[in-house]
Amino acid sequence: MIAQESKEWLKTIVGIDNFAYDTESLLNASSDYTEDLSFPPELVLFPADASQISQILQHCNQNNIPVYTRGAGTGLSGACLPVNGGVALSTKRLNRILEIDTDNFQVLVEPGVINQHLKQALEPHGFTYPPDPASMGSSTIGGNIAHGAGGPKAVKYGTTRDYVLNLEVVLPNGEIIWTGANTLKNATGFSLTHLMIGSEGMLGVITKAVLKIAPKVDHELLMLVSFDQAELAAKTVSAILKQGFKPSGIELMERNGIDIVLAHKSLQFPQTPEDAFYLLVVLEGGNSEDLMQQAEAIYPFFEEQGALNVYVPNNSDMANDWWSARRSIGELVKQQSIYKEEDTVVPRSKLPELLKVVKDIGSEYGFRSVCYGHAGDGNLHINILKDDMTEENWQVEVPKGIRKIFEYCYSVGGTISGEHGVGYVQKEFLDVVMSKTHFSLLKGIKNTFDPKGILNPGKWID
Amino acid sequence: MIAQESKEWLKTIVGIDNFAYDTESLLNASSDYTEDLSFPPELVLFPADASQISQILQHCNQNNIPVYTRGAGTGLSGACLPVNGGVALSTKRLNRILEIDTDNFQVLVEPGVINQHLKQALEPHGFTYPPDPASMGSSTIGGNIAHGAGGPKAVKYGTTRDYVLNLEVVLPNGEIIWTGANTLKNATGFSLTHLMIGSEGMLGVITKAVLKIAPKVDHELLMLVSFDQAELAAKTVSAILKQGFKPSGIELMERNGIDIVLAHKSLQFPQTPEDAFYLLVVLEGGNSEDLMQQAEAIYPFFEEQGALNVYVPNNSDMANDWWSARRSIGELVKQQSIYKEEDTVVPRSKLPELLKVVKDIGSEYGFRSVCYGHAGDGNLHINILKDDMTEENWQVEVPKGIRKIFEYCYSVGGTISGEHGVGYVQKEFLDVVMSKTHFSLLKGIKNTFDPKGILNPGKWID
Repeated sequence: MIAQESKEWLKTIVGIDNFAYDTESLLNASSDYTEDLSFPPELVLFPADASQISQILQHCNQNNIPVYTRGAGTGLSGACLPVNGGVALSTKRLNRILEIDTDNFQVLVEPGVINQHLKQALEPHGFTYPPDPASMGSSTIGGNIAHGAGGPKAVKYGTTRDYVLNLEVVLPNGEIIWTGANTLKNATGFSLTHLMIGSEGMLGVITKAVLKIAPKVDHELLMLVSFDQAELAAKTVSAILKQGFKPSGIELMERNGIDIVLAHKSLQFPQTPEDAFYLLVVLEGGNSEDLMQQAEAIYPFFEEQGALNVYVPNNSDMANDWWSARRSIGELVKQQSIYKEEDTVVPRSKLPELLKVVKDIGSEYGFRSVCYGHAGDGNLHINILKDDMTEENWQVEVPKGIRKIFEYCYSVGGTISGEHGVGYVQKEFLDVVMSKTHFSLLKGIKNTFDPKGILNPGKWID
Repeated sequence: MIAQESKEWLKTIVGIDNFAYDTESLLNASSDYTEDLSFPPELVLFPADASQISQILQHCNQNNIPVYTRGAGTGLSGACLPVNGGVALSTKRLNRILEIDTDNFQVLVEPGVINQHLKQALEPHGFTYPPDPASMGSSTIGGNIAHGAGGPKAVKYGTTRDYVLNLEVVLPNGEIIWTGANTLKNATGFSLTHLMIGSEGMLGVITKAVLKIAPKVDHELLMLVSFDQAELAAKTVSAILKQGFKPSGIELMERNGIDIVLAHKSLQFPQTPEDAFYLLVVLEGGNSEDLMQQAEAIYPFFEEQGALNVYVPNNSDMANDWWSARRSIGELVKQQSIYKEEDTVVPRSKLPELLKVVKDIGSEYGFRSVCYGHAGDGNLHINILKDDMTEENWQVEVPKGIRKIFEYCYSVGGTISGEHGVGYVQKEFLDVVMSKTHFSLLKGIKNTFDPKGILNPGKWID
């Protein structure tokens, strides 16, 4: 419980309008997009800047008050959930794009900037910020960095990690550092920048970020390629890249996921009864001729790979519908049933085997799954549905099945999360991929930054 | 001093043929390519594998024996120098390419593999390993990782950091871990992989690496572009990229460096008296038409930027000569005089100002410098020559000037090393870019990995 004096002091720091403890505010800060988990904090603070955050952390550190930094709350591993109560620290007001530097291809932003807003702000300059998590319309840059977020275009452009040059970070004791330099190269000490990326709010609070940006490629063409077998679809993924094609995205979707989407949304999406797996392939080009050349070259290639059908959208509405279908799967599948979402990642040639393993384990442990994800990166999201399973099976048997899936991933060089993080919900599986020695190093790093453990307690590091 | 019993035990571990303490071996292990520094170890060990390295570290850790891991000894910051004696641990025998996986675009290698050997092994498969430090003909993958090495093509392909997926590391206590997964994405805990990159042998000994590889682009065209003013040359660098051209390298060379090279090497290198600064621009293409299109588009662009002359090589011998000139500058300039080499990096639009600052500070502190480097990345190597300066000036005044150069870099968002590391020689300048708080975090990380400080003692972390 936070003492009354602490509450008063925290209110003084942020001002009365940015200090909330009403039921609605606490409820809003209690959850993210992970299952139906809800852990209300005791207080929600909306600081204005690094200086206020520094004062907040200093006070919380002295008084052992847990602090849960929170962006838009779109996370899928429960990383921001205030599982031990305390303070939810919202970055909502730190939402300024401070500098757009087109000479050096970089921007200076605050962590509360929405990913899509940054993209929009860059567009008139002919630039973009490539990382494109499914949540990009609402998720924040700070949250993206804290999770090392990926997205469909990671296959060509990489993940958030590849775009972070330098970070301003407030440490638990209130001190403020910059982690690196605003340069493309930096060989000056162990990289704190890369340590912060994916650290899930456990090491410090990011208050500014210098990010790389890229010239925007204006022309995009989608191709939807269907297969009757998972194996053919997944093998085609490796083959596309090996053949030298450079799509900016290669997304895999199971038919059952598409069926659920189409039952709920009126979308133009071509289907024949045999289409069991789809690849959504995104081609990009500097101009439309370039794009047509790529499309003409890749079309016969898909047929050689054993594709059933290769669809090209008739117009931009149809193309938008295909993207919409892809981006809606997660959300709509989850409306079907109580669910658990996994974020497996393997070397991409192992995808066919992973798909098979998931289905086999599903049969063994009695669960249905819908799979989709970033095939070009070997990153498969698995939505496991509870349907009418007994609570006991759901709580006891399904986790055993998940563990087996993760053990398979590890056995082929993969791991338990490609882009969602470990957070709260994957904590119990971390031992599958991480030895005690490895974990103890991470724990040592945590202790170095946050010796009193006030930042995001109750997650995988604890 | 290493006790006789320790020596005997270490000999037992590696075998008598891989245990050396003769004068020549000690001398070979005493230096790298940094100035004329020489610090002989007491012993040189040539272990065969991770298991032997584990035994060595365990023993050295128990007995407080310093261990200096050593690749090819081509470093430029003195990072591998055995400044406190002890053991030089050579990775020479860990030189196998264990797996080439063209499905997943990755390789598994040992740290002693020479960068160029890996490139050669990949060529028949149609792949390459892009990072290309000047030392690539002799430097090792392990050393490249330990320094986060860059190279001319980093402007398009990034540095070593962008190619490391997973590392096997022996910790000082002898335990062996893998730092990550063999996947393109990984959001599973703080990234130890990225912590190892650039850690200069201070946290563990890398014994295996999973690296990304890329399809080889076969066609390359060089253009040599001369300017009469540094400012025009450096401004052109930003302009090239802003205009959407995608060269794989943009190297900057001062005329005085080229003159030194041509005085020592018979190379075809075009010059007019007005050519004061050169850009070596590398274009790449999938085929020769593509390449010619790029060349035709960029040619008039250089003229608009105020270039004096734009040269295209008549044949591949001439192209090789231009590369040779660029790659020889460092080595040949250093034969002129006792020298210090700096590895400044700034946001690339600041390059013209940096060049001016270097020359102004040179005048103030009485030193001559030759500048060259990776202009596309804002990474400028500065060779400062002693010439006939007094020893006192060299030891006292020049470091003051260097500090001022670094202070300028820091003031514009840059730092003191882009790709060479901090190692031994930049230790005294680290405070320019790193606060005490930042340093104490790095120290905490060091203590977590290496509580007894046996790995690479006497460098910037101590």
